[in-house]
Amino acid sequence: MKIEFIEGGITAAKGFIAGGVHCGIRKNRSKSDLALIYSADLCDAAAVYTTNLVKGAPILVTKEHLENGKARAMVCNSGNANTCNKDGVQKANLMCEYTAEALNIQASDVIVASTGVIGQPINVEPVKKAMPDLAASLSADGSEKAAEAIMTTDTAKKEFAVECEIGGKTVRIGGIAKGSGMIAPNMATMLCFLTTDAAITSELLHCALKYAAEKTFNMVSVDGDTSTNDMLSIMANGKAGNTRIEAKNEDYTRFDEALTALCIRFAKSIAKDGEGATRLLECNISGAKSTHDAAQMAKAVVNSNLVKAAFFGADANWGRILCAIGYSGADTNVEKIDVTLSSAVGEILVCKDGGSVDFDEEKAGCILHSDEIVISVNTKDGDACATAWGCDLTYDYVKINGDYRT
Amino acid sequence: MKIEFIEGGITAAKGFIAGGVHCGIRKNRSKSDLALIYSADLCDAAAVYTTNLVKGAPILVTKEHLENGKARAMVCNSGNANTCNKDGVQKANLMCEYTAEALNIQASDVIVASTGVIGQPINVEPVKKAMPDLAASLSADGSEKAAEAIMTTDTAKKEFAVECEIGGKTVRIGGIAKGSGMIAPNMATMLCFLTTDAAITSELLHCALKYAAEKTFNMVSVDGDTSTNDMLSIMANGKAGNTRIEAKNEDYTRFDEALTALCIRFAKSIAKDGEGATRLLECNISGAKSTHDAAQMAKAVVNSNLVKAAFFGADANWGRILCAIGYSGADTNVEKIDVTLSSAVGEILVCKDGGSVDFDEEKAGCILHSDEIVISVNTKDGDACATAWGCDLTYDYVKINGDYRT
Repeated sequence: MKIEFIEGGITAAKGFIAGGVHCGIRKNRSKSDLALIYSADLCDAAAVYTTNLVKGAPILVTKEHLENGKARAMVCNSGNANTCNKDGVQKANLMCEYTAEALNIQASDVIVASTGVIGQPINVEPVKKAMPDLAASLSADGSEKAAEAIMTTDTAKKEFAVECEIGGKTVRIGGIAKGSGMIAPNMATMLCFLTTDAAITSELLHCALKYAAEKTFNMVSVDGDTSTNDMLSIMANGKAGNTRIEAKNEDYTRFDEALTALCIRFAKSIAKDGEGATRLLECNISGAKSTHDAAQMAKAVVNSNLVKAAFFGADANWGRILCAIGYSGADTNVEKIDVTLSSAVGEILVCKDGGSVDFDEEKAGCILHSDEIVISVNTKDGDACATAWGCDLTYDYVKINGDYRT
Repeated sequence: MKIEFIEGGITAAKGFIAGGVHCGIRKNRSKSDLALIYSADLCDAAAVYTTNLVKGAPILVTKEHLENGKARAMVCNSGNANTCNKDGVQKANLMCEYTAEALNIQASDVIVASTGVIGQPINVEPVKKAMPDLAASLSADGSEKAAEAIMTTDTAKKEFAVECEIGGKTVRIGGIAKGSGMIAPNMATMLCFLTTDAAITSELLHCALKYAAEKTFNMVSVDGDTSTNDMLSIMANGKAGNTRIEAKNEDYTRFDEALTALCIRFAKSIAKDGEGATRLLECNISGAKSTHDAAQMAKAVVNSNLVKAAFFGADANWGRILCAIGYSGADTNVEKIDVTLSSAVGEILVCKDGGSVDFDEEKAGCILHSDEIVISVNTKDGDACATAWGCDLTYDYVKINGDYRT
C-alpha cells in the first residue's frame, strides 16, 4: 500500500480546524500555551494513556469523556501539568466547559490535556478569558499554531500527516505531538493528538491506536521515566466518505498501517528531540526468540545511560550494548550476538559472536558522528524482531533537568 | 550489639596480608593495577555475583573455585575486565596459576576478579612478571595498596572494617571495594572483597553475604546499568577463636549484623563516589505494604534520571519523586504519600498526601545544597520499609562516560 507523507499536520484531514494562543498560564508572553482542535461533525474517538499510578487530572476527565467513544474537540495547555493538585479534576472539567461554551458543543465531547510542571495548582482563568477569541480564530491552516502551543522543552514543532487510499477513497490522518524528555514526568510529557477523516468505529480506532502505540511510542525512551500525563488520542469524522470500517477487514489493515507509519514518524521526532540530544539512536534487534524478547533488548539498549553517553562521545563501545542486552531480561545467548553500527555514511561490524572484531576506528568515528545512528543487533536465536528509538545522553540533558521547576 | 568501625580495611582481621602494584596492564605507570590478598590458613569462603547474562570470565573461574567453599587468596587487576574475550577463561585461570605459584598454594584456592574495559583481550604477561615481587611484598599494612590497585574511575579509596564480640571473642570483618559507575558495565564495576577472622562455615558465610548484599549493594544505583563483573566475596580464617558458627544461632545473627553494617558503609561509599556525583542520596521508604514494594519504590527513586538531575540542581522537585514511585511497579496509593527532605542542616516536608504543601524554598535550598541528602517517603499503607542509595546526575557523569573506551 502506498502511504504518502503530506503537509497540514492536525488539519490535514478534511473537516478539522485548529489554533493556538498565549493565554497566560505561562508568564513568558512569547510562548503560546493553549491549543484547540475542533471538528464541526461529531467524531468517533479513542485514546491511550500513561501506565503511571500518578495520573494527571486531565487524563481522568478525558477517560470519562471518551467512555461513549465520541468527541468533537481537543484542548491542551502547556506550562502546568495539572497533576498532584487537590482540585485538579475540577479545573480540568472547567477547561472542558470553557471550550464547550465557546464552540457551542457538549463539555463531555471535549478531550483535555495539560503539560508542564506537576504539583503546582493551575489557574484556569486565563483559559476562560482566551477561549472565545481562540475558538473564533480556528482555521484549516492552524496546525502549526496548535503544535507550537503544546511544546515545552521541545526544540522543534512536531506535526505530520499521511494520505492513503482506503476503499477507493483518499483518507488522511494527521496530528501534532510534544515530548522531549519523553517520559520526563515533570514536563508531563509525551502528548500526541491525531485526527482523521476516515469513517471507523471508536472500538476499532482504539484497537489501531493501541497497536500503533505499542510499536512506536512505547518503544521510545529519552530517559526511561514514564510520565504522569502521557496521552495519545484520535478523532475520526468520516468525511473521507469511505465505507465505515466496522470490522478488522482489509480497510482496517490499511488504516492501521497508515496510522503506524505516522506514529513511527512522531516517535522518531520525539526521540531525536530528546532533551539535550545531539543524535537519534535506532536499535533494531533481529533473530530473537520472540517479539517480546526482541522488544526488551531493543528498549534496554536505547535506555542505557552508558550506551547513550557513549554515543554522545561517538565511542563505538559495543561492550555496553552487550551489557544492556545481558540485563534486559530477554532470553538470549549472548555468545552468538553480532552488532553493526550504521548511518547515512556507511556501516561497520563492531562485535561478532559476542566478542571483539578488528574494525577501522576511523570509519567507525565517521559513522558515529552522524545525526542518526542505527544499532543493528542480530542475536541469531530465532526470527523475531523489534525496533526502539532513543537519543544520546548529553551535558544539556543534565542542564535542562537540573533546574526545571524553579 | 556494639559494632565498632576500625582502621585496617582488608587486613584488619587477624591473619590476612595484602598488597598492590603497577604491573603494566594499565599504561599509566602512576596507577597501580594488581591487588593481592592472602591468608596463611585455608579459609571458608563464599561469593555472590552479577545477574547479567554477560559475565566476565573471572566470575566463571571464581564460581568453579568456590564450589568447595574454600579459598586462600584473592587476586584482582584493574584496567581490563577480561569480559567478552574468546580466551577469557584461560587467561583468568592463568592469573590464578601465577598467584598460586608465587604463594605456593593451589590455583583452585584463588578467587580472581578483573575490572576495566570489556571486549579487549587481556595480556596477563604483566601479571606473571609482577607476581613474585607482589607476593613477597604482602603485609598487614597492605590494605591501602590493595584498595588503590582495584580503583578505576573511583575518586576515593574504599576500605572499611568493623569489630564486634561474638561468643566472647573479638571478631573483625574488613574489606576493600571499588565501584563508581555502580553498575557501569564498562568499568566492570562493583567489586568488594571481604575478610574475617570469624570461624564460620562457607554455607553460612554465603547466606549472610546474600542477605547483606540484598540490603546494601543491591540497593545502590549510580546509573541503573547492571555490570558484567560485579562480585562480592568473603574469606573467613577462624583466627578469632570463636566457636565455629555452624547454625543460624545468636552468634550467626551477630556476625550477620556486623557484616551488614560493614556492607552499608561500602554501599554508601560507592553511591557517594558515583561517577560525577556531587551528592549522596538516601531514599527511605516507610509505611509500605511489603518489603518488596518498599524496595521497588526506593530503587525507582534513586534510579530516576530526573530525580537525580533535580538533586544536582538542588531543586526540591518532589513531583519527580512521586512520578518514580508511580511507575516503580510497587502497589501503593499515591494519594497518601508524604515526602520529607533532610540533611545535616535540617528537614522539610515538601509533599503531603500526594499533593503540594507550602514550604520555605530558602530552607529547602539549604538542605538541598548538602553533600548527603535523605529523601524520606511515608506511603502510610503498612509497616514495611526499605532504603536505597544513589547520587545526583551531573555533567561529569556524561563527560566520564562519553569517552571512556578510546
